[in-house]
Amino acid sequence: MNWGALDRYAKSLIKEAGHHIKHSFFTEIEISSKSSANDLVTNIDQEIEQFFISRIRRDFPDHRIMGEEGFGDDIQSLEGIIWFLDPIDGTMNFIHQKRNFAISLGIYIDGIGMLGYVYDVMADDLYSAMKDEGAYLNDIQLPKLKSTTIEEAIIGVNASWVAPNRYVDNEPMIDLVNRCRGTRSYGSAAIELTHVAAGRVDVYMSMRLSPWDVAGGMIIASEVGAVSSTMKGERPGLLEQETFIVANASIHSQLLDDFIALKK
Amino acid sequence: MNWGALDRYAKSLIKEAGHHIKHSFFTEIEISSKSSANDLVTNIDQEIEQFFISRIRRDFPDHRIMGEEGFGDDIQSLEGIIWFLDPIDGTMNFIHQKRNFAISLGIYIDGIGMLGYVYDVMADDLYSAMKDEGAYLNDIQLPKLKSTTIEEAIIGVNASWVAPNRYVDNEPMIDLVNRCRGTRSYGSAAIELTHVAAGRVDVYMSMRLSPWDVAGGMIIASEVGAVSSTMKGERPGLLEQETFIVANASIHSQLLDDFIALKK
Repeated sequence: MNWGALDRYAKSLIKEAGHHIKHSFFTEIEISSKSSANDLVTNIDQEIEQFFISRIRRDFPDHRIMGEEGFGDDIQSLEGIIWFLDPIDGTMNFIHQKRNFAISLGIYIDGIGMLGYVYDVMADDLYSAMKDEGAYLNDIQLPKLKSTTIEEAIIGVNASWVAPNRYVDNEPMIDLVNRCRGTRSYGSAAIELTHVAAGRVDVYMSMRLSPWDVAGGMIIASEVGAVSSTMKGERPGLLEQETFIVANASIHSQLLDDFIALKK
Repeated sequence: MNWGALDRYAKSLIKEAGHHIKHSFFTEIEISSKSSANDLVTNIDQEIEQFFISRIRRDFPDHRIMGEEGFGDDIQSLEGIIWFLDPIDGTMNFIHQKRNFAISLGIYIDGIGMLGYVYDVMADDLYSAMKDEGAYLNDIQLPKLKSTTIEEAIIGVNASWVAPNRYVDNEPMIDLVNRCRGTRSYGSAAIELTHVAAGRVDVYMSMRLSPWDVAGGMIIASEVGAVSSTMKGERPGLLEQETFIVANASIHSQLLDDFIALKK
């Protein structure tokens, strides 16, 4: 595989999809009623996924695709080349804010992340990475993350995980919230992964994410030295919904050891 | 007072200050160590406030100024014209993210908000409003907010208020988090007020905000029909730190009645 050529191909697909979202969709959503706006969102999500799939199947017939909308392949193992696609990550932001959503794409071979992309469509910010070649925001390389401490860290965690929930004991989470410098929540896993990669937040975690939510961003975050895992500290399996944490490497283990108590 | 002329004057000051932050400061912060970065932040906060104050005192000697950095007047009452200024709202974002901070400015006469500004410096987005003349994002008027429900609402609330805290009973807050559509937290009160004004979130609340944090954004939010108050439902007094909530008018009372239980 010529990964450099595939990188250019993927970037071009993403930009074309972003253009479509920005220029055709927002014209339509403006003139639609609220209930039909939800249908439009479903439509655009599906349209964008089908756009990717038709191109990939035409140009790389031996690659497989796992997409959020379900038009891709039925992926039961990680062999070969797999594209993990979320055509619109942050759907609620897309509907409610008309910004702060992203196209998320990760291309893996035999389970190893080779190319990762998160395209913040409205900001026109493309985060990208190739394995061992560094991570970029548009044309600017993101520096390696400097070490930090829990006390200095900004934690990306939604308030729902600080409330009692079925996944983790919320008492240690409350300790974490009280001990860290501050918390943020942006409503798009893909974008929050890029915030970690860019050093804007030091941790992002969620109790329930799908492979397409994280596959692209994980590669980007890894290139600046951030560590991604499940809440059990295992490498994300990329075959089903799992817990997820990505953090500055200097605090990743401490977070899991001292603040995450899984209920199951 | 010619408010139209004062509006143009204030906008020009804000843009000049934003230019200074963007172009001189970020050069300096890049080359500074971490501890000196904090000093630089303090310096720029103070420099920007002093820039505003020197201009206002020169051009409007009878106006008073309440600024976050404390170089303004000792304000004990709301008579006359008062400028409420936060030179950098979202200081932690400023340091950590180099984005998502704002210059916040509200100009009041006898306690009545006349001109409000929130300038998201890095996005170059200027939110502004003149009393009874509507709110704008740059040159585009923000539409009046449509009514919503708790179940459909995105709530701007930091995780720290969902953890046990000294200000509110966190049990009803947990109910709110579980009942609403989702929560967000961005780390700048001024910017979160503009998110409410633009309909991107439906509520923003905090247990401890200062007059300069909210004075500008309140005027902007009011022009699209959002309601600002303390957590007791009173009009913010603008003389000291208080609780604060701004919400889509259709859910403001319900939030206070059903989900806010103040401890004192």
